[in-house]
Amino acid sequence: MADKKVEAITSMEEDFAQWYTDVVVKADLTGYTSVKGFMVLKPAGYAIWELIQKQLDARFKETGVENVYLPMLIPEGLLQKEKDHVEGFAPEVAWVTHGGLNELQEKLCVRPTSETLFCDFYQKDITSYRDLPKVYNQWCSVVRWEKETRPFLRSREFLWQEGHTAHATAEEAEERTIQMLNVYADFCEQILAIPVVKGQKTEKEKFAGAVATYTIEALMHDGKALQSGTSHNFGDGFAQAFGVQYADKDNQLKYVHQTSWGVTTRLIGAIIMVHGDDNGLKLPPMVAPTQVMIVPIQQKKEGVLDKAEELRERLAKVARVKVDATDKSPGFKFAECEMRGVPLRVEIGPRDIENNQCVLVRRDNGEKITVSLDELETKVEELLKTIQKDMLETARAHRDSHTYEARNWEEFVDTINNRPGFIKAMWCGETECEENIKAETGASTRCMPFEQEKLSDVCVCCGKPAKKMVYFGRAY
Amino acid sequence: MADKKVEAITSMEEDFAQWYTDVVVKADLTGYTSVKGFMVLKPAGYAIWELIQKQLDARFKETGVENVYLPMLIPEGLLQKEKDHVEGFAPEVAWVTHGGLNELQEKLCVRPTSETLFCDFYQKDITSYRDLPKVYNQWCSVVRWEKETRPFLRSREFLWQEGHTAHATAEEAEERTIQMLNVYADFCEQILAIPVVKGQKTEKEKFAGAVATYTIEALMHDGKALQSGTSHNFGDGFAQAFGVQYADKDNQLKYVHQTSWGVTTRLIGAIIMVHGDDNGLKLPPMVAPTQVMIVPIQQKKEGVLDKAEELRERLAKVARVKVDATDKSPGFKFAECEMRGVPLRVEIGPRDIENNQCVLVRRDNGEKITVSLDELETKVEELLKTIQKDMLETARAHRDSHTYEARNWEEFVDTINNRPGFIKAMWCGETECEENIKAETGASTRCMPFEQEKLSDVCVCCGKPAKKMVYFGRAY
Repeated sequence: MADKKVEAITSMEEDFAQWYTDVVVKADLTGYTSVKGFMVLKPAGYAIWELIQKQLDARFKETGVENVYLPMLIPEGLLQKEKDHVEGFAPEVAWVTHGGLNELQEKLCVRPTSETLFCDFYQKDITSYRDLPKVYNQWCSVVRWEKETRPFLRSREFLWQEGHTAHATAEEAEERTIQMLNVYADFCEQILAIPVVKGQKTEKEKFAGAVATYTIEALMHDGKALQSGTSHNFGDGFAQAFGVQYADKDNQLKYVHQTSWGVTTRLIGAIIMVHGDDNGLKLPPMVAPTQVMIVPIQQKKEGVLDKAEELRERLAKVARVKVDATDKSPGFKFAECEMRGVPLRVEIGPRDIENNQCVLVRRDNGEKITVSLDELETKVEELLKTIQKDMLETARAHRDSHTYEARNWEEFVDTINNRPGFIKAMWCGETECEENIKAETGASTRCMPFEQEKLSDVCVCCGKPAKKMVYFGRAY
Repeated sequence: MADKKVEAITSMEEDFAQWYTDVVVKADLTGYTSVKGFMVLKPAGYAIWELIQKQLDARFKETGVENVYLPMLIPEGLLQKEKDHVEGFAPEVAWVTHGGLNELQEKLCVRPTSETLFCDFYQKDITSYRDLPKVYNQWCSVVRWEKETRPFLRSREFLWQEGHTAHATAEEAEERTIQMLNVYADFCEQILAIPVVKGQKTEKEKFAGAVATYTIEALMHDGKALQSGTSHNFGDGFAQAFGVQYADKDNQLKYVHQTSWGVTTRLIGAIIMVHGDDNGLKLPPMVAPTQVMIVPIQQKKEGVLDKAEELRERLAKVARVKVDATDKSPGFKFAECEMRGVPLRVEIGPRDIENNQCVLVRRDNGEKITVSLDELETKVEELLKTIQKDMLETARAHRDSHTYEARNWEEFVDTINNRPGFIKAMWCGETECEENIKAETGASTRCMPFEQEKLSDVCVCCGKPAKKMVYFGRAY
C-alpha cells in the first residue's frame, strides 16, 4: 500500500531536470502567476524559507549582526558610482521610469543587490571610528532580469539576505568576510545537511566590484555543482567611489573597508537536489515545517482518531507534528508524506493501540521501527536527530564519491564526460585556461578551496607551472 | 543628573510635528539615503518591526493563516481587471518599463497591494470546494508614489503584511474579515498598549474594490486620529473579475468570496505618537528591543562592571537586557535610555552593591524603586508587566478624555477647533455631508463604530434624520 504513489513523477535517472520540476510542483512548493519569470512561494515552500531565515538569523545575531531595511529602488546615478559594479549589473536590472502619473527625472532600478544603497547610507551615517564597525543585514527580495528561469535556482525575483558591513581596517573586513562564509558553511552542514566546499573564487568568477569573493559549493545528486552562498571583501574600493570615510582616533580621515554576503531561496533548490529521491522531497528535520506526520490506520474504528490526536499532543512538545485525518486512504497519505518530504511518519491503528505501540517510518531510508507508546517522545526526538545526522553523512558520502582528481587533460575530459561530479585539478592562474576549459567541457571554475593539495606541478589545461588546485564542475 | 538630555528635542506642546521628527531621528529609528521619499529603517527601528512581526505572525498562525510570497511586479493587464481597484491605485504606482536592456512588451507596476496577484494565483490554484478556504498572508514591502512623505506615516515604500483569503461562502468571508480586525485590535491593545475604536468605513472611505472595509482607529497624543489597520470584505467582485471559481459538492461552479487585511510600519508611528513625551520615545515592554538597560554608576570602581554583568546574566532569563558600559557619563546614559524608550533602567553603583540593592527607574512615569538584589528577577518581570498595563491605561484615559460628542453643528465646529480629539456625532448616511464636514472643518469620517449610541435624531451636518453614529476627527 505504501508503494502506491500520489502521482507518478519522472525518475531521477531518466531525466533529472524533469524530476526536479515534478518534485517542486507535486510537493506544492511553488505556483504560477501571469508574471513571466516570477514564481509564487506556496505555503509548503515558504515555510521552509521561514525555518532557514529563523535559524540563520539567530546565527547572524550571535556574531553581532543587526537587521535593517533599505529602499528597494536605486537611482541610476548611485548604481553608476562604482564602475565594475554597474558593468556587472546594469544589463540585468528592471528600470522604473514612471512614478504615479509622471515620468521620473532620473530612472530607478529595482535593487539587484544593495551595495550602492548601503554605501550611500554609510556615507551619511558614519563619521567617526566610534561608528564602526557597522554589521548590518537585510532580508528582502531582489530582481535580476534572467532570460531562462527555474524555480528556486534562477528566477527574476528571489528572496535572500544581504549583509553589508563597514570596518576601520582591511584586516577586520577580511576577518568578517571569512567569518560569514564559515557561518554559511556550518549552517548548510548542520541545518540543511548539505556538506560544502569552502574556497575563493577566481578573478574571472568574483563579484562585480569585489577584491575577493569566497564561496561555498555544494554537489547535487546529478553531479552538478551549485554555488550556495558567497561572501565578498570589497577592500576600500566602494568607499572611495562613494566617499565613505571616518575620522580615526588620530583625527585622520580614512576610508572604511567593506564586505557583503548573501544566501538565497536557491538553498531550497539545493535541499531538493541533494536529498530528494524518486518518491519526492526529503527534508532534513531541522528545516521540515512538519517533522512528524501521524497517519491513523482504520481511522473509522472507535478510538483511533482520539489516540492519534493524543499522540499529536504528546509529540508537539518535542517536534512539529500533524495528524492526517482526511478521508484519503492510508496508502495515499503515506505517498503524500513521502512526496512532501516529512522526515518521520507515525502509523497508529487498532492493533497498535491494543499492543500499546506504533510504527515509525523514516523518510530518509524507509526503515520501519515498532516502538512502545511509553517511550514515544524519546524515540521520536532521538530519531529526528539520527535522521538529520544520517542525511548529512549520506550527502557527504555522495559528494566524496563524486569528487575526482584529474592530473592531465585526458583525465579531465574523460571524467567530465563520464563521471559527473567535482573535479579537482591544478591550474596555472590564467583566465584564458578557465575560458578554454569552459568552452571545451562546459565545466566552470567553482573555487580555489581553502584546503589545497598538490596533485601535480602543471596546469591541467596548458601544462605551464601550476599555482593553485581548483574545483571544477558543470554547474547550475 | 538624570535631567541632562542627550540633545534637546522640540517640545510636543510647541510643535508636535517637529517633536515627532526629532524623536524619529534622535532615537535612531530611521535614516536617509539619496532615494527621495524612501526611508532607511535603522537597527533600532527595524528591531521594533521584528517584534511586531513575530508576535502578530504567531497570532495569525493560531487562526490558521499560512504565509506565502507572491511577485513584487504586476502586469498592467492584471491590475486593470477590477475596475474600482485600478482607478484607486493606478495614479500612485511606480511603473517598470524596461527589463535588462529591452523595453517590456507590457509594463509592470511595483505592487501597491496584491489583490490582483492573489486573484490570478487563486484562479489557477482553486478548483474544488476541497481547496477552500485559502487563508494566506505575506510579509513584504509595497510602493505608492506619495507626494508628501513622513517617516513611518507616509512613505513611498513601506513594510507591511497583507492577508488574502478565499472562501466558499459570503458568511465565512465576512466572519474572517471581522476575525482579523479583532486580531489587530487585540494586538494593538495587548502588545502596543494602544486602545483602538473598531468600526466600519463609510462608502466614501472604503477600499478600492471592497464591499465593506473595517478599520481600527487610534488617537494620537496631539488629538489627531491614525487609521492603524484595515480589513476588507470583497464579496465575489474580484472573483467575478478574475474568474476565481470552485466546483461545489453538488458540482456547481461558484465564485469564491474574498477578504484582505493589512497593517504596516505605520504602527511604529502610532507607538511614537501615542506614548512618547518630551524626553523621547516610550516603548511598551512587549515591543521594546531592549527592555532593561543596566547603567553602572562609578563604573571604574572595582567590582561595579562585574556586578552589572552579573545582573545582566541573571535578568537575561526574564527580559531583553543590556549593560551600557561605554565611557559616557551616567547622566548621558540615562537621557539616552529615555530618548530610545527603554522601559526600565537599572542603576547599580558601589553603594548599592554594599547594600545588596539597586535602583529601578520606570520610563513610563519616572518612578524610582529601590529593590534588594535577592528579588531582582521577580521585581523586573513584575514591573515590565505593570508598565505594559499602565501604558495602555494611560493611553486609554487620554483617548477617552479626548473623545467628545457633538449634537449640532455649532458644537461640532467648536470642538474641532478647540478640543483636538475624536468627535462622536450622528450622520444621515450621505456622502455629501461627509464632504461638507471635511471641507468646512478638516475632519474626516473615521468610522461607524461597532458600538453605536444614539446621541440625537438628526445628522450633525444637514439636520436630516440620522442613520449612524460616526467617529470624526482630523487624521494623519
